[in-house]
Amino acid sequence: MAPQVLAFDVFGTVVDWHGGILREVAQVLGLRVDAGAFALAWRAGYQPAMRRVMSGELGWTLIDDLHRIILEEVLEQFGVRDLGTAEKLHLNKAWHRLDPWPDVVQGLTRLKRCYIISTLSNGNIGLLTHMAKHGGLPWDCILSAEGFKAYKPDPATYLGVARVFDLEPAAVMLVAAHQDDLAAARACGLQTAYIERPSEFGADRIKDVSPDPANTLHARDLLDLADQLAA
Amino acid sequence: MAPQVLAFDVFGTVVDWHGGILREVAQVLGLRVDAGAFALAWRAGYQPAMRRVMSGELGWTLIDDLHRIILEEVLEQFGVRDLGTAEKLHLNKAWHRLDPWPDVVQGLTRLKRCYIISTLSNGNIGLLTHMAKHGGLPWDCILSAEGFKAYKPDPATYLGVARVFDLEPAAVMLVAAHQDDLAAARACGLQTAYIERPSEFGADRIKDVSPDPANTLHARDLLDLADQLAA
Repeated sequence: MAPQVLAFDVFGTVVDWHGGILREVAQVLGLRVDAGAFALAWRAGYQPAMRRVMSGELGWTLIDDLHRIILEEVLEQFGVRDLGTAEKLHLNKAWHRLDPWPDVVQGLTRLKRCYIISTLSNGNIGLLTHMAKHGGLPWDCILSAEGFKAYKPDPATYLGVARVFDLEPAAVMLVAAHQDDLAAARACGLQTAYIERPSEFGADRIKDVSPDPANTLHARDLLDLADQLAA
Repeated sequence: MAPQVLAFDVFGTVVDWHGGILREVAQVLGLRVDAGAFALAWRAGYQPAMRRVMSGELGWTLIDDLHRIILEEVLEQFGVRDLGTAEKLHLNKAWHRLDPWPDVVQGLTRLKRCYIISTLSNGNIGLLTHMAKHGGLPWDCILSAEGFKAYKPDPATYLGVARVFDLEPAAVMLVAAHQDDLAAARACGLQTAYIERPSEFGADRIKDVSPDPANTLHARDLLDLADQLAA
């Protein structure tokens, strides 16, 4: 059965967070820190921060605010103690200015002709909207953990997409570069497409992009996905 | 101060609900009913139905479902008792297929270059997304009463737009063809722009489109609004 809605993970799948954060950290902090290591440390704080929200330890908190909390910890860890508040706020918004991978705009444009294309990201709506304007991402709509008041991999997010469009879960396909996200979606009855992003963590840290036969589709990038979905 | 986000009312302001519903009712029911009167009756049930939700008499209910409830009442009122379930479901989706007014696509395209353009509609997200694909509406994001779990004119909707973008209310401008919607937004601190849609209720029921000096702007249509906002 062909899906009607394609819901895209964003960080890593659609945009190159490592390259974008590395670049902006290097602009702000210069040679004082290893900008690639700084980007990895910032991102590494993301899952634990969301778990603190989902466990109830923290009240509902948007990713912009979690990024800001983690930034303080990473600056401390890297020994940076003299950054002003305005510079911190600017650096925190680097997540709004991440560039799409080179195949994305053309791939989404093709897929949009045949399917509803939506985000399904833990990023907040404002962040995702700014990112779409920055990168020219032609989303049909922006769905976020913010709207469901739950972070992936909570089932409320995957099933929430189906409910928004009044569809069975199997009519929705999650598109992501992360097998754990896809596995959680599959457990909710969604179709799944894995996208290879071997340099998500940097060109010198190539990640395993082996196929998992449990996914509905496995694609090199979004142009390959559009080919496979006849878009 | 220039706004950063333009939030648009949709039914009547962006799309011609009367013309669209009239056309589809005439297609389904032919000459058995006065299709224009049927469209007006269907729309007239809308505000009372939302008030039943906001008063707590009905639990949270999406507009698709409220439209379906009202459709049953209007069919009864017009003496139509033989419409099948599939035809009713199809007719109910006519609200997803409403056409934009002639100035809208060009006006939104110009405004999008300088501002974030979002819906702020009582319509549900699925409805608004289908409508955007149908009419080629280039929204940056789709915000709906569904996301705020409150219907306009509840302040949670107007203030919700500002919160999504982490802005003061005055940095958001509500764009609408209805003075009551604009007044409620203004009471929350938003800027407001009135759009003239004299034939919202049909070409033979021209409505008063007099300016209210309380609004920030008064525009003939979205092209005029783009001129006034230098977009």
